[in-house]
Amino acid sequence: MSCIFCKIITQEIPSQKIYEDEHTYAFLDIHPVNIGHTIVIPKIHSANIYEIPDIILTHLSKTVKKLAITIKKAVIADGINIVMNNDSAAGQIIFHAHIHIVPRFSNDGFTHWRGARNYHPDEMSSVGKKITNLISI
Amino acid sequence: MSCIFCKIITQEIPSQKIYEDEHTYAFLDIHPVNIGHTIVIPKIHSANIYEIPDIILTHLSKTVKKLAITIKKAVIADGINIVMNNDSAAGQIIFHAHIHIVPRFSNDGFTHWRGARNYHPDEMSSVGKKITNLISI
Repeated sequence: MSCIFCKIITQEIPSQKIYEDEHTYAFLDIHPVNIGHTIVIPKIHSANIYEIPDIILTHLSKTVKKLAITIKKAVIADGINIVMNNDSAAGQIIFHAHIHIVPRFSNDGFTHWRGARNYHPDEMSSVGKKITNLISI
Repeated sequence: MSCIFCKIITQEIPSQKIYEDEHTYAFLDIHPVNIGHTIVIPKIHSANIYEIPDIILTHLSKTVKKLAITIKKAVIADGINIVMNNDSAAGQIIFHAHIHIVPRFSNDGFTHWRGARNYHPDEMSSVGKKITNLISI
């Protein structure tokens, strides 16, 4: 198994472990956005959210909630971003599904992407229909 | 109830609805990062991840997975970011917990924040301990 995160779980590769239970493992990102930036991973290997079994995703989401609350207190953050990148085009680098918990501080200067590409007239409803058509299949 | 997202669920405020089930509702963001950018919300009002009951969080995560797969196909995206902003300092604007599903395309130009603030020597272990001390309480 050549997956770096699988090796972190087995401790073949060292990490600053934050939390571990039957299904999930969490450790500090070595290239943090802010201090306390944590990565939460499922112990079983899935490449991304598309592949994670629902039962594991459930455990993962509960671990993320618990740690978001704890990390916010521990580093006295003003907010928390929870981010999961799926595929290279979305910034995923390690192809073992993982969720970032990013502590944020007022005026820490990181900007969001919202509103970068607004809809042309009628485009929103046609995009909506494309998606809902696939859901109903 | 003055919450905008609660009014979207009851359709007092219109939205381009993508999906709805017993516990969750999803609609297109009117200020998207990319076309197909969707917001998924729990039907019961919680301000953020810290407050969402685990049972609702579980449903929410399963809806997000299902829609991430569907939206990727529908808009022929190369990747998907899943983002949840909690508190103003983290970019939260509407204080009804919500998860962004953001379709991404190769070379769409959006950059990530990772590595912005690396650790000083020994800082990583001391931050790790601050967090784990709070978990064990």
